[in-house]
Amino acid sequence: MRRARRAASSGASLEDAREVMRRCDVLAGISSMEGGIERIYLSPEHAAANAQASEWIEAAGMRAWQDAAGNVRGSYPGATDDAPVLLLGSHLDTVPDAGRYDGILGVMIAIAVVRRLAAHGARLPFAIEVLGFADEEGVRYGRTLLGSCAVAGTWDPAWLDLEDADGVTMRDALTAFGLDPDAVGEAALDPATVVGYLEAHIEQGPLLFDAGRPLGVVSGIMGAKRFDLVMEGEAGHAGGVPMRHRRDALLGAAETALAVEKVALARDVVGTVGELTVAPGAANVIPGRAEFSLDVRAATDADRDKAWEDIRAKALAAAGERRLTFTERLRHEARATSTERRLSEAIEHGVRAATGERDPMELLSKAGHDAMAIASLTSYAMLFVRNGNGGVSHHPDEVVTVEDVALAIDAMEAAVLAVAQRMTDGSPL
Amino acid sequence: MRRARRAASSGASLEDAREVMRRCDVLAGISSMEGGIERIYLSPEHAAANAQASEWIEAAGMRAWQDAAGNVRGSYPGATDDAPVLLLGSHLDTVPDAGRYDGILGVMIAIAVVRRLAAHGARLPFAIEVLGFADEEGVRYGRTLLGSCAVAGTWDPAWLDLEDADGVTMRDALTAFGLDPDAVGEAALDPATVVGYLEAHIEQGPLLFDAGRPLGVVSGIMGAKRFDLVMEGEAGHAGGVPMRHRRDALLGAAETALAVEKVALARDVVGTVGELTVAPGAANVIPGRAEFSLDVRAATDADRDKAWEDIRAKALAAAGERRLTFTERLRHEARATSTERRLSEAIEHGVRAATGERDPMELLSKAGHDAMAIASLTSYAMLFVRNGNGGVSHHPDEVVTVEDVALAIDAMEAAVLAVAQRMTDGSPL
Repeated sequence: MRRARRAASSGASLEDAREVMRRCDVLAGISSMEGGIERIYLSPEHAAANAQASEWIEAAGMRAWQDAAGNVRGSYPGATDDAPVLLLGSHLDTVPDAGRYDGILGVMIAIAVVRRLAAHGARLPFAIEVLGFADEEGVRYGRTLLGSCAVAGTWDPAWLDLEDADGVTMRDALTAFGLDPDAVGEAALDPATVVGYLEAHIEQGPLLFDAGRPLGVVSGIMGAKRFDLVMEGEAGHAGGVPMRHRRDALLGAAETALAVEKVALARDVVGTVGELTVAPGAANVIPGRAEFSLDVRAATDADRDKAWEDIRAKALAAAGERRLTFTERLRHEARATSTERRLSEAIEHGVRAATGERDPMELLSKAGHDAMAIASLTSYAMLFVRNGNGGVSHHPDEVVTVEDVALAIDAMEAAVLAVAQRMTDGSPL
Repeated sequence: MRRARRAASSGASLEDAREVMRRCDVLAGISSMEGGIERIYLSPEHAAANAQASEWIEAAGMRAWQDAAGNVRGSYPGATDDAPVLLLGSHLDTVPDAGRYDGILGVMIAIAVVRRLAAHGARLPFAIEVLGFADEEGVRYGRTLLGSCAVAGTWDPAWLDLEDADGVTMRDALTAFGLDPDAVGEAALDPATVVGYLEAHIEQGPLLFDAGRPLGVVSGIMGAKRFDLVMEGEAGHAGGVPMRHRRDALLGAAETALAVEKVALARDVVGTVGELTVAPGAANVIPGRAEFSLDVRAATDADRDKAWEDIRAKALAAAGERRLTFTERLRHEARATSTERRLSEAIEHGVRAATGERDPMELLSKAGHDAMAIASLTSYAMLFVRNGNGGVSHHPDEVVTVEDVALAIDAMEAAVLAVAQRMTDGSPL
């Protein structure tokens, strides 16, 4: 078996990287948004992106197919017919007005890696399956990771009744897309047949950029909780009601938002108030009601929950002082997950091989990824690629450099080969 | 000339008050809003309210007419044909989902006062004109005090090009209402013919309620400034961007909103952030932009402007620390106005006569009133009637008691007679 030890940014690698970036550009053109990128689950753009990705999968030497959940998949055979399968993937859907690399880059790198293997006719002790997940962002139905949950076997048929903003149920959208709503579960893999899952993804933060490192090894994915919060006070005339008489709901929300920042800094977690609306919402009326979101993430579920308790206490104190009513509703919860040591060592080996770095940088992912859902099926590891714009994410200004992408392809290829090596001879990586 | 010295809440006064409240109920039924009160300028409801008010004006012994701006007016002759005119009024339009007394009560009290005078065939050294202003709230065109500006002679023909939410210009709305857009200025009175202006209004705050007083003498109307403010930072992933890297626009706005409260308490002014929107506005995205309003009011324009300078400095400091851009735009400005001493003494005399209080309570109005616009034409004084629900304003829960309204009618009648007495013999009130 060949061990990848190519020089960083060799000519061939740069050429592969340019092709990967060109493909990201092509997919960016498949959009429902004028002047921007948006591609949501079960849309015409989803179908077009799958068709385009299938072409590239076939051209790489794989068999392309679409599964029961609308994920596009590519199968590359192993050395034997009964070989287990190593999964490589990420997602092809986007948020509104998205960047062109979030998710997409990982799928294109996976295809590029298999293309290299196929070009050498390599047969590994496992088959490879490339996965282009159809929904990770959850834009259409407010439920994230639909595609990877289907593959992981954690698809919930109750989701079929979810409605999009136009009132279209997921059941009807699946049917219109040409899929059988009652067969989505068939996309699931059998855990016994799977070696593991490797995902490359652009870092949705600035840490690699700030450290001057092109690639990073992910140590785990933070646990997240998302809440809908409400401060309820009393509306009143902006002139007539004296300051000390007021029950201004916005000020309670403002104190809470600032408390989120304070707690996050003190506890080394991240917390964000991303939505906030006030009612009645007129310049001359004191806000009687403020509705706002809270997103809190931490390395462990315990840290996350402790931070939330602190924030909650401060919100209740602010509400008490201001004679407001504070209410909370948990909207979303994701448990913290850890990468698997041996798979992470393979990624680390890949980064070393590609970059020549002795001690690759390790990062905790504060953003969610398909790997979180796949963690229910098999163990995983992830490679982060430097965000070339200081961490700008979910935004058209998201960029990567061709040099970094070349290193990422090299590293992922080396990681796959390292897993194969380990399976073959059990030698340390 | 008869001096009003009736006992507080005599049977006849209570009967008059019950009629005033019944009329407020009737007008509350003339609404464009299902299940609530809304009556905007140049609407079918405006026409219907004017027609109804005209009936009551005629029944009170006045000649009713509609002026070139759509205000409903009632003329009661003085002792001589060339007598100057004392104005009594308030407004008949409402905010959306309004209470039934704001503005309306003052017009109904004015009609009730003239009805009493006419019943005795009183002829005073001035004529009286009752004014039911057609637009004070500015709901339809975002420009307040349209009716009173027309009467004061400060109508600006440029307003004809303002458009409502449906794109209808004021010019077209005036025409559709049966008025000549180019003749609105004819509603103006000649300052030389006017004695002054007296307005009764429900207090849009809790001060009389808290003090246990039914009526109050207004000392002036606060100066107000209204700003559109923006904090601009950078959107980013709620997980991926570390706390210390963030340029969270909402947090800058939150600090500013809390600073408004702090400055207002320290400087004894009122300040309100009533509107706030964040963009992009998703739970998992750091707000890159926050747009918010500021309404600041104070007893003098200088106090108001000092408070704004303090708030502005704190906003700029918050923006500086958070690497945000802070921008401001003045949306609206109203200068502080003072009541005229002799007219206020007449109101004070009226309150004493009606309530038996030795030392009537004096209040500064933090809300704007038609009197602000009329101040350009003539001097003014105002009577506040206790808000029976602790200051709830611009809200269906706004209430007054029949007892307080009876005292208000008595006080306004006594005030009118006091002005007449003073004109006749120059004696101190």
